[in-house]
Amino acid sequence: MTVYQATASAPVNIACIKYWGKRDTKLILPTNSSLSVTLDQDHLRSTTTSRADPSFQKDRLWLNGVEEEIKDGGRLATCIKEMKALRKQLEEKDSSLPKISGFPVHISSRNNFPTAAGLASSASGFAALVASLSALYQLSTDASQLSLIARQGSGSACRSLFGGFVAWQMGERADGADSYAVEIAPREHWPDIHALICVVNDEKKGTSSTSGMQRTVETSPLLQHRIKHVVPERMAAISKAILARDFDTFARITMQDSNQFHAVALDTDPPIFYMNDVSRAIIALIVEYNRVAVANGGKLKAAYTYDAGPNAVIYAPKENIKEIVELIVKYFPQADKFKDPFELFGAAGVQGKVVEGFNEGVAKPYGVGAVKGLIHTRVGDGPRTLGAEEALLGSDGLPLKA
Amino acid sequence: MTVYQATASAPVNIACIKYWGKRDTKLILPTNSSLSVTLDQDHLRSTTTSRADPSFQKDRLWLNGVEEEIKDGGRLATCIKEMKALRKQLEEKDSSLPKISGFPVHISSRNNFPTAAGLASSASGFAALVASLSALYQLSTDASQLSLIARQGSGSACRSLFGGFVAWQMGERADGADSYAVEIAPREHWPDIHALICVVNDEKKGTSSTSGMQRTVETSPLLQHRIKHVVPERMAAISKAILARDFDTFARITMQDSNQFHAVALDTDPPIFYMNDVSRAIIALIVEYNRVAVANGGKLKAAYTYDAGPNAVIYAPKENIKEIVELIVKYFPQADKFKDPFELFGAAGVQGKVVEGFNEGVAKPYGVGAVKGLIHTRVGDGPRTLGAEEALLGSDGLPLKA
Repeated sequence: MTVYQATASAPVNIACIKYWGKRDTKLILPTNSSLSVTLDQDHLRSTTTSRADPSFQKDRLWLNGVEEEIKDGGRLATCIKEMKALRKQLEEKDSSLPKISGFPVHISSRNNFPTAAGLASSASGFAALVASLSALYQLSTDASQLSLIARQGSGSACRSLFGGFVAWQMGERADGADSYAVEIAPREHWPDIHALICVVNDEKKGTSSTSGMQRTVETSPLLQHRIKHVVPERMAAISKAILARDFDTFARITMQDSNQFHAVALDTDPPIFYMNDVSRAIIALIVEYNRVAVANGGKLKAAYTYDAGPNAVIYAPKENIKEIVELIVKYFPQADKFKDPFELFGAAGVQGKVVEGFNEGVAKPYGVGAVKGLIHTRVGDGPRTLGAEEALLGSDGLPLKA
Repeated sequence: MTVYQATASAPVNIACIKYWGKRDTKLILPTNSSLSVTLDQDHLRSTTTSRADPSFQKDRLWLNGVEEEIKDGGRLATCIKEMKALRKQLEEKDSSLPKISGFPVHISSRNNFPTAAGLASSASGFAALVASLSALYQLSTDASQLSLIARQGSGSACRSLFGGFVAWQMGERADGADSYAVEIAPREHWPDIHALICVVNDEKKGTSSTSGMQRTVETSPLLQHRIKHVVPERMAAISKAILARDFDTFARITMQDSNQFHAVALDTDPPIFYMNDVSRAIIALIVEYNRVAVANGGKLKAAYTYDAGPNAVIYAPKENIKEIVELIVKYFPQADKFKDPFELFGAAGVQGKVVEGFNEGVAKPYGVGAVKGLIHTRVGDGPRTLGAEEALLGSDGLPLKA
């Protein structure tokens, strides 16, 4: 008997122009366009196996081995239903195709990064879900069309359907048909963009982004100005900077937009805070690091950005990452040895230090654990279809043990 | 021989609608109007003695006993010069008046609150300077006219020329003649407004407000929207709320405007942060305290506001202050006994506690010292002319020892 099963992985993406605010909460249509860098799946990914089988009783899904309820009308149900509908269209056009669109599916998904890392897994997770179902159903649908479906799972998931540098065009239509992701440039265009993720210890769970962004839409006077006047300009300018591989402009806009996102969160009633004192200290370090570079006649060497949490993501050309790791470690000593995927450091490991001319007074050194970990990665590719040996479902249709 | 000398005190004011940004840095003309509550001089004040004497060599000024340089063309020199000019006009109109406008002055000024308290002393300081010179020169000039001069010393000083609830009208003229303070309502209109100042420990000196606000003017896209569209509406609404003694509206606008001021600071490039994790925890406590009140069918019971530093000022009707002190002390234990000027607590002192229904998880308790002190005060009156027994200059024209 044929087994209808496929496995795919999808990447994390971290926005440079931030998505914050929905104009339609059910369809997940944003109040502004956004733009992100897709990170390398070699380091951070969600992997998902989907199987369609007539013997299954119903659609079921496991996340990291734990079954999640697929609520009627919920985001998971919507994505699965839309993918089945695309398969059904194919089957209707080509009667030789097996009629698997009507079969219940079992889906097993895993993230290779711990939830405790504080990295949003919904973007890579929904992108991997859509990618694995697309492979299962052998759809020829293009990534932008698939991104329409991933978007309804989690807005920013639509951007994880592409590698490289990706824009989510907000669109105008009420049905959301023009609110999808497009590739601004593939990773090969600018592979030199690396990222250092600083996982910041968080004592307090912040406001969820879903509820937070709607409160901002309802109460922040500044958000309206951002949406109408600031973001459109920045989208055009940063896209141009990416095409020109102009890191200075890319970095400036990325930092400005991270700050503005947190500014409108703060302008919300009651206010929303995601950054803490450690986040702010990392900003001070990067501002000073850039100041020294500019004072020496150079350009910006790094850009920080913060999502809806205290973690910093620092984008920089590869050649600067070593200095940046040394800088962060100087102020935030690490409990664990730096995992050095690009072999920047020898056997001695990282020694904390600052570049010449750096004003060490811009931040105070913290103790071990304030920054819990550092992850070095880079711009990456879009979803990958994987071989059967990577499957996460056993022959019984249930999740394999990790 | 006649001694020409006068002493005056002036109050601190804390804005509800924040001043942030100058359209003219020399004349200190703001980009938006602002509004503040004058605090009671019985608790916090600057006191200044001015003496005019032909035997003095030059104008001299001592602040807390330490001589400050009066730089040519600087803010101190400007205020002294303008006050002398007003005296000169009087002398020209009435030849019977002693010609003291040409005499050098000695000025001694003291704040009764430690600089370490982190309270801006420039507002009360320049207001006391202008008030003491006005008394010395026996000017009949009204407070709004004097506020034009205090404004050139330190913008927010103009608001300390009045008691109660005070607006600084930004004005339109290039020469600043219409940029002065006016009284919205005297303290007697709404004496029930009390304030609790939480002095927050600050490990790092923030950006000075003078340089910070100009960076915001130059780089924040959101500031322009705030200036043009948000502040004018809020000025009208909060003035109306004050006249109606509507604490709910007063509190809502005060908190929103504090948040928006810090939002535009964050939208600055590089970003400016004044609040730290302790400031944010106090916000979380007040938000939860208000949430419980509203959930019980009531209205807002307290309003936080933050100037260019981490200290919280909490405005509330007097009847709520006891609960607020207990709440703050519960999360921020105090090294020193609460100085209880309104005798809210008995001999046992403050016991930290929360109101019924309060979700204690909104903030984590801190150790002793995170909030260094609590000052309970209330809305107060404008500058006072004091008797000779309060003078800060000795018969030799030099500052008396403290």
